[in-house]
Amino acid sequence: MGPEEFRRAAHQLIDYVADYQETVRSRPVTPDVRPGYMRRLVPAAAPEQAESWPDVMADIERVIMPGMSHWHSPQFHAYYPVGNSYPALLADILSDAIGCVGISWASAPACTELEVIMMDWLGQLLRLPEEFLFSAGRGGGGVIQGSACESTLITLLAARSCKVNQVLRADGVACEDHDGVAVTPDRAALLPRLVAFASDQAHSSVARASLLSGLRIRTLPSDDAASLRGPTLRRAVEEEIQAGNIPFFVLAAIGTTASCAFDNLPELGPVCERYGLWLHIDAAYAGAACICPEFRPLLNGLEYASSFNFNPHKFMLTNLDCSALWVRRSRDLTDVFEVNPLFLKTPASDMPSYRHWAIQLSRRFRALKLWFVMRLYGAEGLRAHVRRQVALAKEFEGLVRADPRFEIAAPVTLGLVCFRLKRYGNMINDHLLSRINGARRIHMVPSMLPNETYVIRFVVCSRYTESRDVQLAWREVQRHTDELLSSTEVLSRAKMLWGSVRAASIGLRLFHSWHSV
Amino acid sequence: MGPEEFRRAAHQLIDYVADYQETVRSRPVTPDVRPGYMRRLVPAAAPEQAESWPDVMADIERVIMPGMSHWHSPQFHAYYPVGNSYPALLADILSDAIGCVGISWASAPACTELEVIMMDWLGQLLRLPEEFLFSAGRGGGGVIQGSACESTLITLLAARSCKVNQVLRADGVACEDHDGVAVTPDRAALLPRLVAFASDQAHSSVARASLLSGLRIRTLPSDDAASLRGPTLRRAVEEEIQAGNIPFFVLAAIGTTASCAFDNLPELGPVCERYGLWLHIDAAYAGAACICPEFRPLLNGLEYASSFNFNPHKFMLTNLDCSALWVRRSRDLTDVFEVNPLFLKTPASDMPSYRHWAIQLSRRFRALKLWFVMRLYGAEGLRAHVRRQVALAKEFEGLVRADPRFEIAAPVTLGLVCFRLKRYGNMINDHLLSRINGARRIHMVPSMLPNETYVIRFVVCSRYTESRDVQLAWREVQRHTDELLSSTEVLSRAKMLWGSVRAASIGLRLFHSWHSV
Repeated sequence: MGPEEFRRAAHQLIDYVADYQETVRSRPVTPDVRPGYMRRLVPAAAPEQAESWPDVMADIERVIMPGMSHWHSPQFHAYYPVGNSYPALLADILSDAIGCVGISWASAPACTELEVIMMDWLGQLLRLPEEFLFSAGRGGGGVIQGSACESTLITLLAARSCKVNQVLRADGVACEDHDGVAVTPDRAALLPRLVAFASDQAHSSVARASLLSGLRIRTLPSDDAASLRGPTLRRAVEEEIQAGNIPFFVLAAIGTTASCAFDNLPELGPVCERYGLWLHIDAAYAGAACICPEFRPLLNGLEYASSFNFNPHKFMLTNLDCSALWVRRSRDLTDVFEVNPLFLKTPASDMPSYRHWAIQLSRRFRALKLWFVMRLYGAEGLRAHVRRQVALAKEFEGLVRADPRFEIAAPVTLGLVCFRLKRYGNMINDHLLSRINGARRIHMVPSMLPNETYVIRFVVCSRYTESRDVQLAWREVQRHTDELLSSTEVLSRAKMLWGSVRAASIGLRLFHSWHSV
Repeated sequence: MGPEEFRRAAHQLIDYVADYQETVRSRPVTPDVRPGYMRRLVPAAAPEQAESWPDVMADIERVIMPGMSHWHSPQFHAYYPVGNSYPALLADILSDAIGCVGISWASAPACTELEVIMMDWLGQLLRLPEEFLFSAGRGGGGVIQGSACESTLITLLAARSCKVNQVLRADGVACEDHDGVAVTPDRAALLPRLVAFASDQAHSSVARASLLSGLRIRTLPSDDAASLRGPTLRRAVEEEIQAGNIPFFVLAAIGTTASCAFDNLPELGPVCERYGLWLHIDAAYAGAACICPEFRPLLNGLEYASSFNFNPHKFMLTNLDCSALWVRRSRDLTDVFEVNPLFLKTPASDMPSYRHWAIQLSRRFRALKLWFVMRLYGAEGLRAHVRRQVALAKEFEGLVRADPRFEIAAPVTLGLVCFRLKRYGNMINDHLLSRINGARRIHMVPSMLPNETYVIRFVVCSRYTESRDVQLAWREVQRHTDELLSSTEVLSRAKMLWGSVRAASIGLRLFHSWHSV
């Protein structure tokens, strides 16, 4: 494909994707296909000869679209939003065309420099403590990761190294100049004694980080508001110390996946400080809202944190992937990854070598997305987006509250509404959700609250969602509720089941199959 | 930014990026900036009000381009290539516009299904053993990862879990139903005894995988051809067993970073089979060449492997990121990542839940890139690309060999030529490279061979590179060589240094600073 053919194809595709986005409202939000549908539509092997662009272009509607869930449909209310906007799309086109690899400053100076500046811009919008910004010159800074999972894993590993070094140093063992394969017997012996903490509401990526790292993470009970509290942490830390173990890391969730609950930072922070624990804040979804002054109090207690993460690719109109991680002492992070510390200990400049800040060495030019999004929306435009989405969630909350059959199951702080039929158990609520999703006019997923209460999650996801979509969603919920509850068969089943359905296997399985994401 | 403004902006940007690519030859290949250059060009904070597209567009040339190394310039001969093509660019535009998240089959069926089919297409092009393909229905399959680093790390972790379970089972300890945080004392006690192996020529990502996982990787000496041999591995394995340790994993490199050397799979394979070791093959760069029958013998011995990885985003015209990993038993991989095994043990279909195959849960729709690239080039077009790049490297090799001042330091098998001034030591060769790069007409990086021989690496990277660029590169090398060697001062320095420069610190530092990527 030469440049002229590319131009023609790309202009055609640009119009297609603009049309797609502007008319996504008219497509069914979820597809009507069974696993394996595509095998009938696509050859079993790659073609030997080049095919033509029109054939490929035609296959987008023939092969791909029949199997799509449209995440940017205004009727998509599942999971949490994934960011998407025209400015981010433009930035990705440029990033792809430049096609550089930011393995070091020298390999693509603009790639590193723009990331440094954008992470400071973003940190300022969030009013992060100054020590997290490069501009403060105190060793802190931010980096773009691919996902909150990676941010959790690498801060856990950084905390591990810090603690191990600290313990060895206290024991008089030299540990500065590890040789790149730093699994000495001294270190290995400490690992089984290390223990990290997270709440029972923490995202499944925390359990994954434990599996990956081989480090133990102790799950702590959250309170009735699904929040991890200071006294719970303090008791657990003291128990572990008494048992001869070494507490080293706490993950606090600001905006949990299940119900957008908030761990209590002002209580957890002082416990971390007292016992020398690395406090990592995972605000993957909720963090973006904190660019609005009225939501910034959600981050009170951030001053105790060693690291902070949120995903602009969720609630800040930035396409996947763009997960923003700040650390107070970047040296803690780079010490984990630098495999040639002797040769690289005196960097040529104050510019970070981002390859030592992440699991991947190769880095795409993702800072362009943040640059385009922040400039083409402006801080005011981004705040307006947050407020609009929250207002739509509040509108839905109002509709639920006005219907005596339903209850709101968790406070509606941002764009998530957890609700349920209040006189029925988990299985009927799950049945209701299945009917709603089966009709394919809107899409939601369930969640399970700490007291094993099954809830339906309504999330404002798409930037195309408007009041009429919220009203449509509610009419769908009501329509299916009316049908479900008026069905004699179902009513009798409900009576039979009510009271004994808390652990209903269908609901649990559904919940786990999505919560495990 | 509304849809009409987006259309206008995107059409303009498409023309810009086509112009950029077609005229990249006319730009200096590397920039003339110092660290921090961008701070003078960009405000210190995000704008409050939205800016206009023309202002942002104008800043591409004002702010970004002065700080770019142009990786797709036909005069860029550094590192290994990073893939880039018009078909991949188109696919990424579509992927970004769809903006789905492939966390499960249901979340975006087309995203999972196309990845399954594409990994089979690609596996067939490489003539992988049938067990690695989904279509064989024997539990194997492929997945797109972000990088070879991640592939190394997760196969290491999978091998760890397999071996630990195997040892525990042999000891009569039940270990099937781990609870998601599976760091039991039994398991923790085994970890310090585990040992993995890789050659001293393996990529730095291997040392990083060790640091991240806390698992010990023993570095083994390669032979004079920079190849890891079977007897070396066998001796090391037996030593470790005698010492009470548990060998479990071998990484074999097919196409090393330093010199594109090849570990001896036909020798290593039987050792792995005999001692029950997981053999992972890292063919990040070289793998793509094996779609050509004449290069496929490089993978002889693949039948012993448990996993195989190569990066279409290197030598196969696919934009970052797209790293293809196949495993013989996908269950080994998913067992590491599944945090809800009880609930997910009976999948609803034969479609993989790719979130259990990778560190990230969120997945972009990257299979589109492979689809567009394989269809719009065709298998023949991709093979022609490989052959053209290799022929250009051979052309450069011929020019070097014709000049008696130079020697070829490693066999030229694919697109890399390692060469050096043969009567001078490492420091003079490093000095030569610095002069060449300083002139900014071509760009190369150095490397260090096992016997501490500094070499200059010439790689055919860009799809725009032609014979005239190879000739230009060689004229640059000759011009700077003439100047360097005719300088009396340098000649006397050379005499003084010759014979004692093997460990020259400048060369070593340069080498390490790039080899550590």
